[in-house]
Amino acid sequence: MKKSMQTIDKDIMNLAKIVGEKEILFKQADLLAYDCDGFTIHKHLPKAVVFPNSTKEVAEVVKYCNANQLPFLARGAGTGLSGGAIPLNGEVIISLVKMKRLLSVDLENRRAVVEPGFVNLKLTNSIADKGYYYAPDPSSQYACTIGGNVAENAGGAHCLKYGVTTNHILGLEVVMPSGEIIDISTNGVLDLPGYDLLGLLTGSEGTLGIVTKITVRILKNPEAKQTVLAYFDKVEDGSQAVSDIISSGIVPAALEMMDKIAIEGVESAAFPVGHPKDIEALLLIEVDGISVGITEQIKQILEVCKTRNVREVKVAQSEEERGRWWANRKTGFGAMGAISPDYLVQDGVIPRSRLPEVLARINKISEESGLRIANIFHAGDGNLHPLVLFDARQPGQTEKALAAGSECLRVCADVGGTITGEHGVGIEKREEMRFVFTEREIAAQTDIRDVFNPNNLLNAGKLFPSPGRCAEVKKEMKNGREAFA
Amino acid sequence: MKKSMQTIDKDIMNLAKIVGEKEILFKQADLLAYDCDGFTIHKHLPKAVVFPNSTKEVAEVVKYCNANQLPFLARGAGTGLSGGAIPLNGEVIISLVKMKRLLSVDLENRRAVVEPGFVNLKLTNSIADKGYYYAPDPSSQYACTIGGNVAENAGGAHCLKYGVTTNHILGLEVVMPSGEIIDISTNGVLDLPGYDLLGLLTGSEGTLGIVTKITVRILKNPEAKQTVLAYFDKVEDGSQAVSDIISSGIVPAALEMMDKIAIEGVESAAFPVGHPKDIEALLLIEVDGISVGITEQIKQILEVCKTRNVREVKVAQSEEERGRWWANRKTGFGAMGAISPDYLVQDGVIPRSRLPEVLARINKISEESGLRIANIFHAGDGNLHPLVLFDARQPGQTEKALAAGSECLRVCADVGGTITGEHGVGIEKREEMRFVFTEREIAAQTDIRDVFNPNNLLNAGKLFPSPGRCAEVKKEMKNGREAFA
Repeated sequence: MKKSMQTIDKDIMNLAKIVGEKEILFKQADLLAYDCDGFTIHKHLPKAVVFPNSTKEVAEVVKYCNANQLPFLARGAGTGLSGGAIPLNGEVIISLVKMKRLLSVDLENRRAVVEPGFVNLKLTNSIADKGYYYAPDPSSQYACTIGGNVAENAGGAHCLKYGVTTNHILGLEVVMPSGEIIDISTNGVLDLPGYDLLGLLTGSEGTLGIVTKITVRILKNPEAKQTVLAYFDKVEDGSQAVSDIISSGIVPAALEMMDKIAIEGVESAAFPVGHPKDIEALLLIEVDGISVGITEQIKQILEVCKTRNVREVKVAQSEEERGRWWANRKTGFGAMGAISPDYLVQDGVIPRSRLPEVLARINKISEESGLRIANIFHAGDGNLHPLVLFDARQPGQTEKALAAGSECLRVCADVGGTITGEHGVGIEKREEMRFVFTEREIAAQTDIRDVFNPNNLLNAGKLFPSPGRCAEVKKEMKNGREAFA
Repeated sequence: MKKSMQTIDKDIMNLAKIVGEKEILFKQADLLAYDCDGFTIHKHLPKAVVFPNSTKEVAEVVKYCNANQLPFLARGAGTGLSGGAIPLNGEVIISLVKMKRLLSVDLENRRAVVEPGFVNLKLTNSIADKGYYYAPDPSSQYACTIGGNVAENAGGAHCLKYGVTTNHILGLEVVMPSGEIIDISTNGVLDLPGYDLLGLLTGSEGTLGIVTKITVRILKNPEAKQTVLAYFDKVEDGSQAVSDIISSGIVPAALEMMDKIAIEGVESAAFPVGHPKDIEALLLIEVDGISVGITEQIKQILEVCKTRNVREVKVAQSEEERGRWWANRKTGFGAMGAISPDYLVQDGVIPRSRLPEVLARINKISEESGLRIANIFHAGDGNLHPLVLFDARQPGQTEKALAAGSECLRVCADVGGTITGEHGVGIEKREEMRFVFTEREIAAQTDIRDVFNPNNLLNAGKLFPSPGRCAEVKKEMKNGREAFA
């Protein structure tokens, strides 16, 4: 696969012919911006970055790569947190940011069709005046693309009630790794004839095909929303309040929790709102629906908090206050940058009932590693985000942080949970797949990949551990610009 | 594959060794009960029926079949409506009805673990006193098994709000077509690392593996329910009321519609409730949730019906009345037997907004074929069940009914819908897969089947049209006891 300078030029020239001369980057200085995504631990230069403007161009690029044995992968906004868009093998990156049109909105049948580069939040903004919205709301929604959301099966704070991306995808146009184009649409149907290709492709982390058109479900705005903020002196009380709320039969639209270190972070970042820094846990609880029903639910939630020794609990008094609370919460991960030179976001899931035990074990991992670990999580569905704080300039700390993150995932797997709730496996958690799957179960998946992607040119080396992993890591460390940034 | 009497005996003897002598049927008289499922148009005798009592026994039977090139398939209660459990190739039927234990219930984390032969309704009955239920409610729920529900991704009247089976499955233990056992569990997680095998297996109609253990989500009973019955003189008004209700932002738990012929049927069957026979459409609308919210929603629903010229609209005055309305509705398909010697259930899906147009086109198909077509449907999610009434004793009527049913599906596909909402493809709709998928899209699916099921011994000939289909049909007609019953 080693190519002479001349061959490289030929490929670049040919790719430029497909997408247009202005729609390709190939100089090292330009490529540096594409050497990683939101997972910055591994960095690798791509061979080139192309910006197709149509499905046809995507298909032609893919066919060219196939014919010339060039590895390739698709990229959205590059906000992914597990390294799914990192060009591990010097891939040709197919950036979909120029395919960013909102193609149609059908309010009557509650669906919209977008191109993959369309930004998540723009969809809600485009239909808000008609009283509709798009439910999946990852914290990066102001930047991340719906194509990327499909690849990662992105979640968000409001997924407790409304489900993750896969629950909102009604159809996909996909360029297969061979360059063929297929169209899988449920047209709003609950069940799809044949195998659930839509479900299979959603969350396949860019390893089975490149999505070029997406039909999504849109929802009617709830008549009303109310948001509660509750401060607890003890983390156990906060955890127990989460369980009690769910047990009472209420399904909040969102039920978020932050621990002491996380609060220190968000209060040091862009949108501080004055959370007390000496509490152990904070809950942000939102209910939505019909006004009268909400009043009743809020009453119940306040009562639950009181029986669990809440220090202070309050209901947002205005849309503006509600907005400030959410802005504060959504700075969560980034806010860690305000209190630590580096941080590693983890993403595990546990049965809700094991929350106190798991938090205690994470605490122990923190003590043993000597690294602080903040916890921000979608408590309602047991999706934890331990944030391991470290300083990459200190020798050995990066490795320690990675090990501590991995240990957190092992705890999640141990208690009957799993290793990712919404960020995907990517490069980051390939080895941790073994915590939850046997060799046979992994083989059942790689066999599927091989059917779609027989040459393994599309986004190779992601999602699965491989017998050749040690060799691969070595190669990465040699070829990567910085193996550990 | 032709085997002498002696070889057959050997296989029967060996299978009997695995499951026990009393757990196998092989005499023709016994096998007759297994020559079809709820789709009675094709009938074929199995080679034998075995009743394993454990996952291990299932795996051993599967391994035996593989080693001896015997085709095999799994069967639940045999209530499937598309022929998924018909032994087209003289299969060894692996009946799962003896694996019918409720293994565990975890109220705190809202999940239960069942064996595949556990009957759907029994789950709700087992947890009702604790205030919980299992949401998917196919009309056959008093008999159908949860294993069968997983195979077909079964729906039901209440799937409008709560989703179909796939939305309620948290984990599966699966015997692969090779006899290997895999365990895929989300443990209640919204997203699963790796590919969504759970989604892929759910609804794969018994062609990718045999499910031997199922973890399902259970839900807390809503605080309250209310049910509305509305009679319309014109079907267009009924359809428009459906659209209006959904547009208003209400998500009813169920929104069912029946037309005139369907009403004639249910009023002639086991649970008549006195619906007027001269109306063109009836809506059965149920909302659930918090009491105060419901009152508000019912008010809105009554208003919508009035603006759409409803003849009469009423709210159930007691749980008993509500129960009678539902019992009447749930006799729906079977009730056709009271007004026609034979009937064919179809199962198409359309965008809600196309309802009046599609009903007019189905009406035209009825006129042209000379066969009456009743319509019962989950109107809220656009899932139609045209019921083609015919008399198999009249020469040519069966073929006419099949053709009319297929035409109804073509109309659904034409308006941007699809060919099955909840009954599956099975044998019945193999050819109609071409209405919604290209050859390439079908190949993407059969390639997946071939990965799981390389020898195609498991439930062959289902779900996909095949180039060899003409030859296959001929063979069926020759080998089947009666090709058209």
